[in-house]
Amino acid sequence: MTVERGDLVALTATEAARRIRARSLTSVQLVTACLERIKERDPDLQAWVEVGAEPALAEAAVRDATPPQGALHGVPVGIKDNADAVPFFTRFGSPIYRNNKPRRDAAHVAKLRVEGAVILGKTVTTEFATFPPGPTRNPRAPGRTPGGSSSGSAAALADHHVPLASGSQTVSSLVRPAAFCGVYGWKASFGRLPLEGMLATSDTLDTLGFLARSVDDFLLLHEIFLGELPAPPAPTNLRVGLHAGPTSNEWHPEMQGLLARAGEELRQAGLSVVDVDPLPFSVDAGIERQWQIMTHEIAALLAPRIHGEESQVTAALLDMLEEGRRVSEKTYVQAMEGRESDRAALAGVWADCDLLLTPAALGPATPGLATTGNGLCGRLWSYLAVPSVACPMGATEAENLPLGLQTIGPEGQDGATLQATKIIAGIVGSPFAP
Amino acid sequence: MTVERGDLVALTATEAARRIRARSLTSVQLVTACLERIKERDPDLQAWVEVGAEPALAEAAVRDATPPQGALHGVPVGIKDNADAVPFFTRFGSPIYRNNKPRRDAAHVAKLRVEGAVILGKTVTTEFATFPPGPTRNPRAPGRTPGGSSSGSAAALADHHVPLASGSQTVSSLVRPAAFCGVYGWKASFGRLPLEGMLATSDTLDTLGFLARSVDDFLLLHEIFLGELPAPPAPTNLRVGLHAGPTSNEWHPEMQGLLARAGEELRQAGLSVVDVDPLPFSVDAGIERQWQIMTHEIAALLAPRIHGEESQVTAALLDMLEEGRRVSEKTYVQAMEGRESDRAALAGVWADCDLLLTPAALGPATPGLATTGNGLCGRLWSYLAVPSVACPMGATEAENLPLGLQTIGPEGQDGATLQATKIIAGIVGSPFAP
Repeated sequence: MTVERGDLVALTATEAARRIRARSLTSVQLVTACLERIKERDPDLQAWVEVGAEPALAEAAVRDATPPQGALHGVPVGIKDNADAVPFFTRFGSPIYRNNKPRRDAAHVAKLRVEGAVILGKTVTTEFATFPPGPTRNPRAPGRTPGGSSSGSAAALADHHVPLASGSQTVSSLVRPAAFCGVYGWKASFGRLPLEGMLATSDTLDTLGFLARSVDDFLLLHEIFLGELPAPPAPTNLRVGLHAGPTSNEWHPEMQGLLARAGEELRQAGLSVVDVDPLPFSVDAGIERQWQIMTHEIAALLAPRIHGEESQVTAALLDMLEEGRRVSEKTYVQAMEGRESDRAALAGVWADCDLLLTPAALGPATPGLATTGNGLCGRLWSYLAVPSVACPMGATEAENLPLGLQTIGPEGQDGATLQATKIIAGIVGSPFAP
Repeated sequence: MTVERGDLVALTATEAARRIRARSLTSVQLVTACLERIKERDPDLQAWVEVGAEPALAEAAVRDATPPQGALHGVPVGIKDNADAVPFFTRFGSPIYRNNKPRRDAAHVAKLRVEGAVILGKTVTTEFATFPPGPTRNPRAPGRTPGGSSSGSAAALADHHVPLASGSQTVSSLVRPAAFCGVYGWKASFGRLPLEGMLATSDTLDTLGFLARSVDDFLLLHEIFLGELPAPPAPTNLRVGLHAGPTSNEWHPEMQGLLARAGEELRQAGLSVVDVDPLPFSVDAGIERQWQIMTHEIAALLAPRIHGEESQVTAALLDMLEEGRRVSEKTYVQAMEGRESDRAALAGVWADCDLLLTPAALGPATPGLATTGNGLCGRLWSYLAVPSVACPMGATEAENLPLGLQTIGPEGQDGATLQATKIIAGIVGSPFAP
């Protein structure tokens, strides 16, 4: 059989799995193509902390020699470097953990392996999956950040290094890099995907998710991790709420235009489209509470991790821990109570629409590599524990930089949210080919 | 200085920390006394999977040579063997993980170390912290179970091997062994104590906690993990709700008498005591939902952990995973929604009382070692995410076997719950000396 590497590395995980199952592609071919692409591109891009050519090829050969069983049989996957995956180091984006080699896979890695996935390596995260950036560039614009903290996974996806990669989000760490790099990102409902074997920064907010080049791949992952999907709705029964996003003076001028255009396209396709603005609670207060909860928890969780090694930690992170220590237990408990009330208030929104469509970032990737950009567009939804799916639905006119919107669904209804998102993404489309 | 080993091994963690700080006791002395006690008693009791005499004595010597900094400076602690603690194996009560040696501490272990604790070793848990028992006996009645899954921690505490040990609860895994062994157990509010580095069985229910020989030790741990405590209430302002517990035909005849007696003693001490029965939602339905949520999640989380090694797993556990696979995603989501509504309904209870007092188990430790006993008294409270504190408040007349009650407080209010529990435990007392 003849295969072109250029086609192979652009396959979605769903399509790669289908071809491997149909024996029109081998896992070794696909893994080899990915490894060659990484070898060629990653010296500049720096999306990977560690790539396991040898173990990945060995695993791929085993997959090719055994009848397909799992849903990802033979498909290479990248793992964000805040999760354990044998035989790789888990470095958390910190020199303190440079020699940290786990003996057991994180729960989601173990599950992916049971489904036949081949773990290709570890993708760059920011320092302890917080704000200080890693070295990764944005493949759509090398002078710009790929976003963070799932920086390497988003960049690797966009640059065709691997068809699927894991990510995680506490503020905006998954939807922002997806938006900045022009790929899809699914942040699950809080508490639905397993966190065992991952770095904890906030036990109230940390959420596992994935980056991919199609919504179909998230449907596949839903079936793996959360079980059977609900039937897709009829598009004309779908009610989409447009939400302009939080108040900010940093909006890119084209972002609100993209939201309006997407809304118009959905309306023309027969969907019900309503404006949902304002939300039935104070967004500003919610965003403030998110910060209090996160910094309070991060201070408690990370301090023992860096104890005695503070000289190897950036000043920015130390400042955040100090800020967290200043959030009193009383303030924290009040913030948690306020969050419960905001979660309950959000439920009222679902009387008027099935999901929200709102910007995934304030605009395109922020210039430079000194910051991973503003996380404002993710913070509220992380705080509210709801599922969100970033979709690369637009591009800036001048430079063709990705602009991302995200769908937001009711908490715990990841399957319905993904099914609806597939319809919406199909209608609005993406300027960026998979 | 002269010290009696018998006194030393009975010290609470608070008192041990105080003496070490005051230099009237050294960490090496205390650790040595614990190690001797373990050597003498554990061949029969089997509370420990692994004891690190050498590393513990070395750590203790370092503590003695450095000025006290943390709140547990020099105090030995046992860690339930479902959490990682370097340099010990983490075996999860399963032969599959017999060689599983982590390179990084679980988050709570790292925190305990920063506070100066000396990790003494790993305590026995049941198979994957579920139901199939380990070898541990009940030190108050060697022919009976110590309860599970925090079996080793409870037995080690009761038998004076160590002043403090960690535990965890998904159904009743902490309050039941505490009750059966006649020690105190604090199951925190869900999501408040860090789970990183621990085996996940249910991401909705798994909760870290501790076992100790006094409520004061939990106040200390609250300060370490959750920060400053609220001021203790005036006893005469405390409103205690007596709750008889779930319906069962397995109640020990003396258990409801104990609850009534405790209520009477509290009333005589000037506290307000009211009966809270029934609860403002269906307890039976809640208990059923707990089971659906847990088995559904445990099937998803444990299956990859045992994949290919099913022959090393008990039939009882395989049956439970099969049961979990039969809980559909739809049933699961409905159970999660029902849980939200039950959590909201429980909040109404706190208008009438500040905390509940209810049995921690149906009776004394179940005879034999083939089962860890009925977990009915913990299930509802694990499901409702609320803090609970098991207290050894009674004993059976015939055999002097421990009978435990537990306090239940509002979700997230662990500090207030512990302060109130201290008052209640002080009034009702315990027939079992620390």
